[in-house]
Amino acid sequence: MTIVRGGAVAFADLWESLLPLGRHPPPGGYRRFSWTEADTACRTWFKDEALKRGLRTGCDRNGNLWAWWDCPGSPPGAVATGSHLDSVPDGGAFDGPLGIVSAFAAIDLLRARGFIPARPIAVAAFTEEEGGRFGLACLGSRLLTGAITPAAARDLRDGSGVSLARAMTAAGLDPGGIGPDEELLAGLSAFVELHIEQGSALAGLDVRLGMAEAIWAHGRWRLDFAGRADHAGTTRLEDRRDPMLPFAAVVLAARQIAERHRMLATFGKVIASPGAINAISSSVSAWLDARAPQAAVLDSAVAEIRLVAERQASLHGGRCVIRRESFTPRVEFDPVLRDRLAGSLAASGIAAPMLPTGAGHDAGILAARLPTAMLFVRNPSGVSHAPAEHADAADCEAGVVALAAVLEELARR
Amino acid sequence: MTIVRGGAVAFADLWESLLPLGRHPPPGGYRRFSWTEADTACRTWFKDEALKRGLRTGCDRNGNLWAWWDCPGSPPGAVATGSHLDSVPDGGAFDGPLGIVSAFAAIDLLRARGFIPARPIAVAAFTEEEGGRFGLACLGSRLLTGAITPAAARDLRDGSGVSLARAMTAAGLDPGGIGPDEELLAGLSAFVELHIEQGSALAGLDVRLGMAEAIWAHGRWRLDFAGRADHAGTTRLEDRRDPMLPFAAVVLAARQIAERHRMLATFGKVIASPGAINAISSSVSAWLDARAPQAAVLDSAVAEIRLVAERQASLHGGRCVIRRESFTPRVEFDPVLRDRLAGSLAASGIAAPMLPTGAGHDAGILAARLPTAMLFVRNPSGVSHAPAEHADAADCEAGVVALAAVLEELARR
Repeated sequence: MTIVRGGAVAFADLWESLLPLGRHPPPGGYRRFSWTEADTACRTWFKDEALKRGLRTGCDRNGNLWAWWDCPGSPPGAVATGSHLDSVPDGGAFDGPLGIVSAFAAIDLLRARGFIPARPIAVAAFTEEEGGRFGLACLGSRLLTGAITPAAARDLRDGSGVSLARAMTAAGLDPGGIGPDEELLAGLSAFVELHIEQGSALAGLDVRLGMAEAIWAHGRWRLDFAGRADHAGTTRLEDRRDPMLPFAAVVLAARQIAERHRMLATFGKVIASPGAINAISSSVSAWLDARAPQAAVLDSAVAEIRLVAERQASLHGGRCVIRRESFTPRVEFDPVLRDRLAGSLAASGIAAPMLPTGAGHDAGILAARLPTAMLFVRNPSGVSHAPAEHADAADCEAGVVALAAVLEELARR
Repeated sequence: MTIVRGGAVAFADLWESLLPLGRHPPPGGYRRFSWTEADTACRTWFKDEALKRGLRTGCDRNGNLWAWWDCPGSPPGAVATGSHLDSVPDGGAFDGPLGIVSAFAAIDLLRARGFIPARPIAVAAFTEEEGGRFGLACLGSRLLTGAITPAAARDLRDGSGVSLARAMTAAGLDPGGIGPDEELLAGLSAFVELHIEQGSALAGLDVRLGMAEAIWAHGRWRLDFAGRADHAGTTRLEDRRDPMLPFAAVVLAARQIAERHRMLATFGKVIASPGAINAISSSVSAWLDARAPQAAVLDSAVAEIRLVAERQASLHGGRCVIRRESFTPRVEFDPVLRDRLAGSLAASGIAAPMLPTGAGHDAGILAARLPTAMLFVRNPSGVSHAPAEHADAADCEAGVVALAAVLEELARR
C-alpha cells in the first residue's frame, strides 16, 4: 500500500517498522506495557520517525511523547493528532499505533502536496492508555488534564507491586514532576484521534471510515469476595465459605443485567487465592468492566450487580467489598469540531457516518479541556484487544487520506 | 506439653523448631514447595532430628527421606511411619508435619520406656504429597510404588514451566533414577501415617483420635474453556464468545451436582487469559477437585459436570476440553492391620473410632503395595489447607502416645 504515489514515504514501511516491537509469539499478541523494554523500543521508534521528518520531539512531564511540525512565527492553537503505543496484554497491532502511524503518514502526504500549515501540527503518543500495567486507562491524558492527582497516580502499582513512581524513575523520568500541564494544553486548539474501530458497525454499513459521536459512560470496579480457605477434600459442602460460588453467580448475573439494560459488562480478570487445586479459596478478586450509553444506566446496573454480589457472598458465608477503580462519564465529542470535520470530509468525497463507542480514548479525556474528535477505521471482524484485530490496507490508506484532509482543514490559513 | 515426663525430649520443642520454616506472614501460611529453599530447610531439619536420635538417614531415589531405627541382625519387615513436610500454597502447620514430628516423638517415648524393637522402625517424609508445586498429589509415594511412570513424572511442570527433572537436578538429585523401588518396598511390613483430621468429625464425637477406614475416590480435572479475546468496551453481547460465562455456570452446576450426589466438588484454581480488565478472555482454565465415597459416584458426577461444561461452552460460542490430571480409586485400609491397631489402642485405653476421609494421603497410595493404616488427630474447627488449621496440644500428645502404642505393637518381638 503506498499512500503517496510516486512519493518518498510508504505507509506500509512505516507500519511494518513498528510491527515487531513488543510482539509475543502466537497465541500471544502485543505486550507493550508502560516503562518496559517494549515500551522503550516503541518510544525510540516514535522519536526516530519524528526526526526523520524533521519534527521537533519532546516528552512532556507525564511521559507523553510529542512531535511538532512547527511553522514560522510560532502561532498559537496547534492542531494535535496521535493516539498511543501501549497495548493491553496480548493485544492487537492496530489499537493505538494505527493513529500514530497514520499521523506521520498524513504529515508526509500533506508535505508531498506542498501544504504549509498556518499553525503547528503535533503528533502525540500518550502513556498507558490501556491501563495494561498500572490498571488505570488513559493515565497519560488524565495526568495532563488533571483528571487524576499526581499523588494518586504515583501510588498506582503494577501486578508485581511496582509503583508508577518507581517505574518512571527507572525509565529516567522524574515522577515528582507529573501532573496537569496548563501551558501545553493552552497551546492546543484541537485534538483529532484516528483509531481502529473496536466493533463491526462500519463493516455492517459498508463504509471504510466513521466519526465518533460520543463515548459511553464506563468504569472499572474491583470485587473482593472473602471466604475461608479450607481443604477441598474434607470440608463438607454445608461447612464451606467458598468465595468462588458468589463470584460465579455474579458473572452470570452481570451478563443478564447488561442484556436487560442494553449495555456491556465483562469480567476479564479474576484471581483466586491461594489458587491451590485442593483448597477452597480464601478469596476471589475480580474486576468488572461496565459501559453504558448514559451514566445513569451504568450506575443503576452496577448497583444491581453490587446487590447480587453482596447477597450471594452472604449466602455463602462470606462477604464482598466493591470498589470503583475508575469512572468516565459519557463524553459527547465537540459538535462544532465534528461538523467542521464532517464538512471537510464530505468535500473530499469521504463518507464517515457518526458512531457511538463503548471504548475509552485519550480523545475522550482531553475533551474536558479542548475540542476533540475521532476518526474510526473499519475493522471487518470487530475483534479488538486481541491478536486477530485487523484493518485492511485500503481502509488504513483511506484513514490517512481522511486524517490529512482534517489536519489541512484545521491547520490551514 | 511434654510427652516424656521427666524424659529428655519435649514434643513442643521439636514442633516449634519446625514452625518457622517456610512460613509467610499472615494472611499467608506455609509455602513449603518441593525442591525450593523452604523444602531444603525442612529436609535439613528432618536429617538433623534423625541424627540427634542416632537414626540412620537416607534419601531414596525418588527424593523421599527415611530415618531408620535399626535393630540387631537387621531383620526384615520394617515398620514405617511418617507423613510429608511439603504444604499447599498458604497451608497450615499440621497437615504432614504433625505425622513426622509425632513419629520422632513416639520413638523418643518408646526409647524412654526402654522398648527394644524386634524389627526396624522407619520414619518417612514423602516428597510433594500436596502436589503444591507440580500439580500431582502424592508424587513421592506414587513414584516409589510405580503409580506414575518415571517419564510422566519427569515431565511434570510447575507454574513457571520448570520440569520436575530440572528441579530435582537443581536440588542435586538425579531425575534419571526415579521410579519404583522394589527393594525398599520389600523391606517394609506396614506403614502407619498419623495425620491431623481434615474435617471436624472427631470434634463432633468428642474424642481426640480416630482411625482411617477408607479414602474416598478422588481426582483432579482440568477444564480449558476456549473463547475469543475481544474488546470489553465495544463487542456487543451477542457477538461475544466469552469463556468466563460457561466457567461460571460450571462452578455453580458442580456445586449442585455434588450436593445431589453427597460428594465434594471444588474449583480452587482458575486462570483467565489474557487477564486484562478491559478484554474479554480468550480462554479460562479451571481445575476441578472432586471426591466421592465410591468411584462410580465420582465418575457419574464428573460426567454430569462435563456435559454442563460442554453445553455451556457451546452456548457461548466456544468449547471446553476436559482432561483428567489424576485419579485415585477408593482405598480401603487393610482390615487386618486396622483391627490389630484398634486392639492395641483399646488395650491402652485409647478410643479411636473409624472415619472415612475425602483427603488423599501417601498411606492411600502405599496401600496398593503393603498394609497401611492411618491415625487422625482431632481438629476442632475442621479447617485444613489454610493457616487456621489447628490441633490442641493435648490431642497432639494423645496422638504421640497412640502412635507409640501402635509402633510397639507392630515392632515387638
